[in-house]
Amino acid sequence: FGNRQIAGTITLVYDHHKPHLQELLTHIQHDHHDLIVSTVHVHLDHDNCLEVLVVRGRAGEIRAVADELIAARGVKHGKLTVTSTGKDLV
Amino acid sequence: FGNRQIAGTITLVYDHHKPHLQELLTHIQHDHHDLIVSTVHVHLDHDNCLEVLVVRGRAGEIRAVADELIAARGVKHGKLTVTSTGKDLV
Amino acid sequence: FGNRQIAGTITLVYDHHKPHLQELLTHIQHDHHDLIVSTVHVHLDHDNCLEVLVVRGRAGEIRAVADELIAARGVKHGKLTVTSTGKDLV
Amino acid sequence: FGNRQIAGTITLVYDHHKPHLQELLTHIQHDHHDLIVSTVHVHLDHDNCLEVLVVRGRAGEIRAVADELIAARGVKHGKLTVTSTGKDLV
Repeated sequence: FGNRQIAGTITLVYDHHKPHLQELLTHIQHDHHDLIVSTVHVHLDHDNCLEVLVVRGRAGEIRAVADELIAARGVKHGKLTVTSTGKDLV
Repeated sequence: FGNRQIAGTITLVYDHHKPHLQELLTHIQHDHHDLIVSTVHVHLDHDNCLEVLVVRGRAGEIRAVADELIAARGVKHGKLTVTSTGKDLV
Repeated sequence: FGNRQIAGTITLVYDHHKPHLQELLTHIQHDHHDLIVSTVHVHLDHDNCLEVLVVRGRAGEIRAVADELIAARGVKHGKLTVTSTGKDLV
Repeated sequence: FGNRQIAGTITLVYDHHKPHLQELLTHIQHDHHDLIVSTVHVHLDHDNCLEVLVVRGRAGEIRAVADELIAARGVKHGKLTVTSTGKDLV
């Protein structure tokens, strides 16, 4: 299962004033930059960010990155949404 | 409940060769352009698209747009992920 | 020069009501999905779309895709912005 | 001129290891969150980020934010690309 290729999104909400949080989230993402197609950041208001990562790769690795990001102290909300990649969908 | 302000994502996977599908999805999105902050489109392979809409607005309206998009003939996968907006998160 | 690795953006503005235009733009993008990291679509108003493609790959190929997209009948505005990739920036 | 409504992109390349740089860029963006539709972040490699901001609002304000971001110490590359908004394009 963990080797299956998937695509999906990781959604995070956090306060960018939280010391070192954004630094940590970026650091985690760069360590896995092969899995993360791109990240969309929306400035919800003066404090809160909604960050949506479009991810693609092996299910097990993606789940691990999602867990690490969502567990970061200061992340208020986090969810992994999985779809299959194109190959399984034909 | 339906009046509560939320932010979130709608994730869609579809085959862009399906006649008129993309046209329809864009049409629905423009009819609600006040709710859709932006849409990220990833070309998964020659056929399949992963489309992630970042949405923001009243829960009821967002659910209605999500239902309309996900129900479109040819959409293989569709999911609405909801978070609260910043105001509820403080 | 054309073999140099670059990263950058292609920015397009168009009217999504123009018959077959979006279909054509998506078709061109899927033919080069290895060059296009992701595409962000913003619904400017009921008619007009702003589409921003984040691209990465060989300069010559990226310039060719940009030319093809910008030349599509109905595209009102189109620009290629080039940066170097990380390797040249160290 | 500075009051004209425009839409466009600000493209930045920077090293996310640079102390306080990302913090500063996010801070500037949140101060102007009404102008920034969304920001796409691509992890180019272990060090470098490509950040593309989709912006919309008065020309003068957008130019000011762009200047502030591009001038930040550690930004290797920065460019503002302007299009008109839909209204001027009809």
